[in-house]
Amino acid sequence: MQLQLCTWAEVEAYLHKGPKAILMPIGSTEQHGPNGLIGTDAICAEVIAKAIGAADGAMVAPTIAVGMAVHHMEFAGSMTLRPSTLIAVIRDCVMSLAEHGFERFFFINGHGGNIPSIRAAFYEVHAENRACRGGNAPDLRCALANWWENEAVGRLSKELFPGVEGSHATPSEVSLTQYAYPEAIKHVSMSPQVAPGGGFHDARDFRRRFPDGRIGSDPSLARPEHGQRLLEAAARSIAGQFKEFVAEA
Amino acid sequence: MQLQLCTWAEVEAYLHKGPKAILMPIGSTEQHGPNGLIGTDAICAEVIAKAIGAADGAMVAPTIAVGMAVHHMEFAGSMTLRPSTLIAVIRDCVMSLAEHGFERFFFINGHGGNIPSIRAAFYEVHAENRACRGGNAPDLRCALANWWENEAVGRLSKELFPGVEGSHATPSEVSLTQYAYPEAIKHVSMSPQVAPGGGFHDARDFRRRFPDGRIGSDPSLARPEHGQRLLEAAARSIAGQFKEFVAEA
Amino acid sequence: MQLQLCTWAEVEAYLHKGPKAILMPIGSTEQHGPNGLIGTDAICAEVIAKAIGAADGAMVAPTIAVGMAVHHMEFAGSMTLRPSTLIAVIRDCVMSLAEHGFERFFFINGHGGNIPSIRAAFYEVHAENRACRGGNAPDLRCALANWWENEAVGRLSKELFPGVEGSHATPSEVSLTQYAYPEAIKHVSMSPQVAPGGGFHDARDFRRRFPDGRIGSDPSLARPEHGQRLLEAAARSIAGQFKEFVAEA
Amino acid sequence: MQLQLCTWAEVEAYLHKGPKAILMPIGSTEQHGPNGLIGTDAICAEVIAKAIGAADGAMVAPTIAVGMAVHHMEFAGSMTLRPSTLIAVIRDCVMSLAEHGFERFFFINGHGGNIPSIRAAFYEVHAENRACRGGNAPDLRCALANWWENEAVGRLSKELFPGVEGSHATPSEVSLTQYAYPEAIKHVSMSPQVAPGGGFHDARDFRRRFPDGRIGSDPSLARPEHGQRLLEAAARSIAGQFKEFVAEA
Amino acid sequence: MQLQLCTWAEVEAYLHKGPKAILMPIGSTEQHGPNGLIGTDAICAEVIAKAIGAADGAMVAPTIAVGMAVHHMEFAGSMTLRPSTLIAVIRDCVMSLAEHGFERFFFINGHGGNIPSIRAAFYEVHAENRACRGGNAPDLRCALANWWENEAVGRLSKELFPGVEGSHATPSEVSLTQYAYPEAIKHVSMSPQVAPGGGFHDARDFRRRFPDGRIGSDPSLARPEHGQRLLEAAARSIAGQFKEFVAEA
Amino acid sequence: MQLQLCTWAEVEAYLHKGPKAILMPIGSTEQHGPNGLIGTDAICAEVIAKAIGAADGAMVAPTIAVGMAVHHMEFAGSMTLRPSTLIAVIRDCVMSLAEHGFERFFFINGHGGNIPSIRAAFYEVHAENRACRGGNAPDLRCALANWWENEAVGRLSKELFPGVEGSHATPSEVSLTQYAYPEAIKHVSMSPQVAPGGGFHDARDFRRRFPDGRIGSDPSLARPEHGQRLLEAAARSIAGQFKEFVAEA
Ligand code: NI
Ligand code: NI
Ligand code: NI
Ligand code: NI
Ligand code: NI
Ligand code: NI
Repeated sequence: MQLQLCTWAEVEAYLHKGPKAILMPIGSTEQHGPNGLIGTDAICAEVIAKAIGAADGAMVAPTIAVGMAVHHMEFAGSMTLRPSTLIAVIRDCVMSLAEHGFERFFFINGHGGNIPSIRAAFYEVHAENRACRGGNAPDLRCALANWWENEAVGRLSKELFPGVEGSHATPSEVSLTQYAYPEAIKHVSMSPQVAPGGGFHDARDFRRRFPDGRIGSDPSLARPEHGQRLLEAAARSIAGQFKEFVAEA
Repeated sequence: MQLQLCTWAEVEAYLHKGPKAILMPIGSTEQHGPNGLIGTDAICAEVIAKAIGAADGAMVAPTIAVGMAVHHMEFAGSMTLRPSTLIAVIRDCVMSLAEHGFERFFFINGHGGNIPSIRAAFYEVHAENRACRGGNAPDLRCALANWWENEAVGRLSKELFPGVEGSHATPSEVSLTQYAYPEAIKHVSMSPQVAPGGGFHDARDFRRRFPDGRIGSDPSLARPEHGQRLLEAAARSIAGQFKEFVAEA
Repeated sequence: MQLQLCTWAEVEAYLHKGPKAILMPIGSTEQHGPNGLIGTDAICAEVIAKAIGAADGAMVAPTIAVGMAVHHMEFAGSMTLRPSTLIAVIRDCVMSLAEHGFERFFFINGHGGNIPSIRAAFYEVHAENRACRGGNAPDLRCALANWWENEAVGRLSKELFPGVEGSHATPSEVSLTQYAYPEAIKHVSMSPQVAPGGGFHDARDFRRRFPDGRIGSDPSLARPEHGQRLLEAAARSIAGQFKEFVAEA
Repeated sequence: MQLQLCTWAEVEAYLHKGPKAILMPIGSTEQHGPNGLIGTDAICAEVIAKAIGAADGAMVAPTIAVGMAVHHMEFAGSMTLRPSTLIAVIRDCVMSLAEHGFERFFFINGHGGNIPSIRAAFYEVHAENRACRGGNAPDLRCALANWWENEAVGRLSKELFPGVEGSHATPSEVSLTQYAYPEAIKHVSMSPQVAPGGGFHDARDFRRRFPDGRIGSDPSLARPEHGQRLLEAAARSIAGQFKEFVAEA
Repeated sequence: MQLQLCTWAEVEAYLHKGPKAILMPIGSTEQHGPNGLIGTDAICAEVIAKAIGAADGAMVAPTIAVGMAVHHMEFAGSMTLRPSTLIAVIRDCVMSLAEHGFERFFFINGHGGNIPSIRAAFYEVHAENRACRGGNAPDLRCALANWWENEAVGRLSKELFPGVEGSHATPSEVSLTQYAYPEAIKHVSMSPQVAPGGGFHDARDFRRRFPDGRIGSDPSLARPEHGQRLLEAAARSIAGQFKEFVAEA
Repeated sequence: MQLQLCTWAEVEAYLHKGPKAILMPIGSTEQHGPNGLIGTDAICAEVIAKAIGAADGAMVAPTIAVGMAVHHMEFAGSMTLRPSTLIAVIRDCVMSLAEHGFERFFFINGHGGNIPSIRAAFYEVHAENRACRGGNAPDLRCALANWWENEAVGRLSKELFPGVEGSHATPSEVSLTQYAYPEAIKHVSMSPQVAPGGGFHDARDFRRRFPDGRIGSDPSLARPEHGQRLLEAAARSIAGQFKEFVAEA
C-alpha cells in the first residue's frame, strides 16, 4: 500500500488491524556518472519500497527524494539538503506519522551520504519524543536498511559486475534505474572504462579525483534485466529485514 | 525533461543552451476526504509539472511531496513539515540548484496550506543569497503558481462541478488523481453529499467542522475523464505563465 | 486598552471578564518612496489597532514594528527580519500570551510582505502547541486582517486617489501617517508623478524597476484629512471583522 | 531623528553627512507591580532615546518592545521572546542597518533581563559579519547603556526614593512612565509598602517570592514630576556616553 | 566527586542522599597573551571546581572547554562557539542532568565573554522547561560564579600584582595555570611590560588595540606559588557561595 | 602538543612550519555499566589523542566531552547533546580553527553514538564553507577514527577478553580508563557475568534490555595493565592513520 494512494480511512484501518509499521524510502538527487540518472538513489529506494509494499501489504510513505549530497555539488543538477535540514525533515515526517499511531519506521535508503543524517535524525526523534511527552512518550522505533547492503544483493552484484561495482554510480544501481525507467536509458561512452576508486573529502575534492562522477565502477555494463534481478533480490532480502524489525520484541 | 531522469552532463547542456529555468512541483501528503488520496496535492503538482516539462522541454525538479499540513493532523496518514522546516527545504533546494547556474525557479503548487511557507522561503532565499554573496549574488527569481488558480481551470471546474467544487478534497483534484492513478480510484459513499463549507483554525477545529475531511465539496462527482481535461487545461495555462516568467526582463 | 499601558492585574481582570482576545498590530520598517515614512506600515497598523481598542475596549498588544522587508533592502533605512526570525517572534509572542489564557489573536497588518511569514507562523504556533501540550493544548485561534483589504477602505482609496493608489508607498498609507504624525509631513517633488507599476523579485530587482521606491502610486496626493477618513473607515471595518472573529463558534 | 519618521532619502543623507551611528531602544513587555505599566521598560527606553535623538540629531531606530522576560511569565500580560529569538531579532536588525552603512549601534536598554541576550547578540553579529564577509567585513561596533546605570540617575533615584528604589517595578521607572503617559497613572494601594528584596530563579520562584511583582521597591511614591527629572538626567547622561561611543577611535 | 569518574550507580546514590546539586565548570579556549595558555580559562574553572568537589563531596560535571571567544579570533589557536551554539550546549547539558533529578546547577566560569551566553542559556532552560512540562516542570535553579569575582580573590590579586592585574591574560589566571600545569610554564619576554588597558569591539578591533593579546596586565609576574594561593582563595570563597546556593529556600 | 597548553604564538609557529593538521578528541558522558566510568568515552579519546600528540608533535584540541547519548538517558548521570547541537558544536570548532589556517581535522572518537553526528557535521562544515566563501573556500578535510576500530586494538581485545568484549561498557574501554585513572577503579560485582548482547532503540528500550547498562560485555575483567597495552596499540595504530591522512594528496 502506498500512503499517497490511500484515503485517510484506509490508513486508519491499516493502523487498527496490523503492525503500526511503515516503510520510508529515502534517496538523493545527485550526479551518477556519465550514464547514471540524477535520481538514481531516490528511484532505487522507491521501487524497492514499493515492491515490498506490494508484496506484503506494508504501508509505504512518499519518498524523500532530495538527501544529503553536499559532496556532489560540483556536478550540474545535484541537489542537497544541509544535514541539519535533512534531520529536521526526517524528524517532522516521523513525528507526524507517530501522531496517528505509527510506531515502527523502516527507512529504505538509496544513498550512502544520507546515513549519518538519518541515524542522527533517529536520535533527534527520540530526544524530542522524550522531551515533549516524558513518561507518556510512545515507544517509537526506527531502522535503516541501505538497499545494497545485504548478502543477496552483494552476491548478485559481484556475479554480474565482478570487480567493477565500485562505490558510486555503480552498474547495479544504474541497472536498477534502467529497469524502472527503460525510456531513460543513456548510451554514453566513458573513459577510462573503470573509474578510479578511493575516498574523497568535499565537493571540489570529489570532482578532482573523480572527474566524471563515478567511483571505482563501470556502469557501462548496466542492463535493465540485471536491474530486475537486483530489484527482486533487494526486495526479498529487505522484506525479510522489515519483517524481523516489526516482529522484534 | 525530468531532472531525476537526466545525467549531470545533460543538465549542464540544458543550462548552456537555454533559459536557466526549472519547474519545482510541490504538494502535500494529507487527508483528502472519503475518496481523495492522501497524495492528492503532490500528485496534481507532479503530473502538471511533468506535462509542461514534456511539452516544452523545461526541466522538472523532483516533487516536494510532504508540505505544510499541520491543520490536517487529526486525520490518519497526514504528514506535515513545520513551516520552518519547509522553508529550510525550499531554501536548500533553490540554493543548490543556483550553485549550478539555475536562476529561475517556478513552483507549481498543489496545496493552499503551502503558500505562506513557499512565499516566506523565497525571501529567505533572497536574504541568504544577499548575505552570503553580497554584490556578487546572482539574480535569482522565484515564482509560484497554484495549479487551480487560473482562468482555464476555474472555468472548467465550474462547468464540471457547478457549486460543489468546494475548497478541500475538491472533485477537480480528485478527478485529476483518478486520471493519473486509475488503479487507485475509490468508491466510497459520503454524506452529506456536499460537505459543509467555511474556514477553520487548528487541526482539532478542522476535524470538528469537517468530520470527513472535505470542505464544501462533492468529490463523489470526480471522474478520471474530467481529470484529464483539468490536467490539460492546467498544463496549458501554467505553461503560459511559466513562459512569461522566463521571458520577463 | 493598550497592553503596554495596563498593569498585570488589569490584564488579569480583562481575561476574567471577557473574550480572551487581543489585537496584534504588525508593520514594517522600510522605505516608502519620496515622501512616505520608513515607519509607514508600523504606524498604520498601530493607529488602527489603537483606534479599535479605544472604541470597543479590546486589548492591544505592542506593535511588531520590524517585519519582513528583504525586498526593500536597497533603500537606506529599511530594516528586515528574515522570515524565519519573524516567524519565531510571532510564535513567541502568541505562545507567551497563550500562557496567560489569551485564546484569540487578531493580527492587524500594515505590510503585504509580512503576510506569508504571519500565516506560516500561525501554523508554527499550532504545531508547537500540539507538540508540547498534546490533548491538553488550548484551542488557539489566529486571524489576519490587512488594513487596506476591506470594502470600505478600497472604496475610499478609489474615490480619493482614482487610478493612482498603486501598491507600495500609496497615497492612502501616506495620508494615514500624515494624519497620525502631522509634524512629519514631507514636501518632496517626485517624477514621474505616477510611479510605474508591476511586480518584482529581490531587492536589486525592486530598485531597478522602482528607482524611487514607489509602485504604481502618486503619494504626492496624500493629505492628513484623507488619512483621517481612511483611518476611520479601516477601524470601523476591521472592528467588525474582529467582532466576528471573537464571536465565531 | 526617528527612523520611522524619515524618508529613505533622509536616511541616506544622514549617512552621508555624519557619524554612521544609530540609537536602538530596547525594552520589555512584562508586569511591573501593582501600579507599574506592562510596557514600563519599553516606554523608558523609548522616551529616553527619543529625547537624545531630539536633542542632538541622532537617528533613533524603532523600539524593540518585547524582550526577554521568561521570569515574569506567572503574571498576566507579560510577553517574552526566548533568548535565542531575541538574539536573532537583534542580529537581523543590526545586520540590516549595516547593509546601508550604519556602523555604530548604541542600544538604550530598559530591562535588566535583556542584558545577556543583547550582549550575546553583539557577538552573534560579529561572528556572522566575519563569516559572511571575511576580510571585507565592515567594522561594526555595538554598545549597551542601561538607562538606570549612570551616576546621574543613581543619585537622583536615591534622593527621590531613599532606600526604596528596589530593583524591579521601581519608583523611578514608574515615575518616568507617569511622565510619559499621564493618562495611564494608576492609583493602587499596595502592601507591604516596600516590597521584599532579593534574587529569584524561574517564573514560579519569582511569583512565590514577590507575589505582587515588585522587588524591594515602593512605587507608590512615583510621581510624573519625578519622572521628568529622571528622564532629563538619563537623557543628558546617556547622550554623553553616546557621544563618546561615536567619537571613540 | 567528578561525574566523569563515577559510575551511574554512584550518581544515583548521590542524588538519593543529598542536595541534587552539581558544579558546572565552563571556560574558553582562546589566546591569553605572550605567556598565557590558550586553555587558561577552562583550566582555571576546572581546577577550582575540582578543588571544591574534592573538599565537600559535590558532584562536578565535565568542563565545557570551548566558550564564546569571537573577539579573540584574530589570534591563532582561539576557538569559539557562536553564542547561539553555546546556549544550546548549556541548555542540553542542564536539561539532560535535570532528567535524572538534578535541580541546582552552579556554573563556575573562567571567561568573561561567556557570561551573556550563560545567563541567556539559563532563561532558555527555564523557557523550555516550562514549555515542555507546564505545571509539572521541576524547580530548576542555575547560578553563575566567575572565579575572579569575589572579595578573597580580588584582595589577593591586588596584593600580588598591584596595579597590573588588568582584565585579560592577567597574572592571576596565568599563575593559576602555572600551578596546575607547571610543565607548561612559558618564559617569554613581553613589551611593554604592562599592556594597554581599555575596552574593545570585534576581533579585529581587539587585535589592533592589544597586539599581543593582553589587556592592562603584566603576566610576566605570574608564579605557580601565587597560583596555588589564588586557587585556594577562589575555592574557599566559591565553595561558600555554592553552599548558600544549595541551602537557599 | 596540547592546544590548551600552548600560547597563541606557539600555535602560529606550528601552523607556519608544518602540516596544518589537528587531532580532535571527542567522547561522551554516559553510563558505562556497573564498574565503568561515566566519562569512559571522553577519557579514552583524550588519552589516546594526547599520546599521539606527545609522540609525534601533533596539535591536540580540547576534548569534546559531552556527545550524543540520547539512548543512555535512563541511567543517572548520562548527559547528551541533541544531534543538532552536537553538529553545531563540531561545525563551530572546525570553522574557528579553519580561520587560523588549520586544514586537516582528525577526530579521535570514543563513542559509537557520536558517529552519525560527527559525519553529518563534516558535511555541514563543507556546506557552510562553500556557502560563505564560494570559490575562495579553503580545502578543508575532516576524518574520523573510532579508537576501537583498527586491527591492532581488535586483535588485542580478542586476546585479552575472548568472547566477552561486547559492544558497550567493554572490558577494553574500562581497562583503558583504569590505566588512566587508577584512583577511580571500581570494584563492583555484576550479574550475569556477561551481559546480554543485541541492539536497542530509544533510552527506555535500552534500559529494558540492558538493565545494568552493559551490552554483551564482561567488564569485571578490566585491568589497568590491559588498559596500558590497549592505549599503546590504539595510539600506534591511529597515529599511522593520522600520518596517512595528513600525507594524503
Ligand atoms: Ni547512488
Ligand atoms: Ni488538495
Ligand atoms: Ni506600506
Ligand atoms: Ni523595568
Ligand atoms: Ni582568561
Ligand atoms: Ni564507551
